[in-house]
Amino acid sequence: MFIYNIDHVAIAVHDLDVSLAEYERKYKVTPVSVETIPDQGVREAMIAIGGSQIQLLESLEPDSAVERFLERNGEGLHHIAFAVVDIEKALEHLASEGARLIDAEPRIGGGGHRIAFVHPQDLTGTLIELVEVDDG
Amino acid sequence: MFIYNIDHVAIAVHDLDVSLAEYERKYKVTPVSVETIPDQGVREAMIAIGGSQIQLLESLEPDSAVERFLERNGEGLHHIAFAVVDIEKALEHLASEGARLIDAEPRIGGGGHRIAFVHPQDLTGTLIELVEVDDG
Repeated sequence: MFIYNIDHVAIAVHDLDVSLAEYERKYKVTPVSVETIPDQGVREAMIAIGGSQIQLLESLEPDSAVERFLERNGEGLHHIAFAVVDIEKALEHLASEGARLIDAEPRIGGGGHRIAFVHPQDLTGTLIELVEVDDG
Repeated sequence: MFIYNIDHVAIAVHDLDVSLAEYERKYKVTPVSVETIPDQGVREAMIAIGGSQIQLLESLEPDSAVERFLERNGEGLHHIAFAVVDIEKALEHLASEGARLIDAEPRIGGGGHRIAFVHPQDLTGTLIELVEVDDG
């Protein structure tokens, strides 16, 4: 298959530091990175769990996609990210199957990875991110 | 840590077979199991992706938790499940930290695993499932 891992599952939160502390206290996990992504108007923490990750997402801007999500839904599961080896090939395949892409071309996301989003109205109401990662 | 993997990420869907076919067509994935869980009033498909899984959840009963979710939110990300080695110990720790548990005691879920749910109002609006799995 061309998706070979769940790279991360993202959760939108109001206060990243408060939520991180509570995950640490209740689930004994700690982040491997905390990073600001100006392009997306967010700050994100990555928590490694097994071969995958939980991403906590905090909005830094009133008009970010995460802020709009929080206003509409409150805190909660925001998107799922699939690891791919060749993001261009993945996007090409999805386009050929008529998928509704948010990003027809990859852009740079957290950790410097090339990423692209597929619209939640494409499939099961789920915002899907593709993340290009070296074949693990 | 006592959670050692993301066992699965669950997505509530209106029609399991339709959604499975679309995941297969767009993401070239196939289910490893499709199972009815009478206790939860659902039918579920597990799709292995790397060391984790996507679970598609279809409601079989008008008053199931999944049906209520679908009525309120439509299709979308429903819960995240963490694999634990000792579910009693995990529940005991969570209770000691004041977590709001849906299941204070484990019950039997898909695949015959012992499971328990933590209320979404406990942490970041996220319904969390614990799944007891042999240490992988």
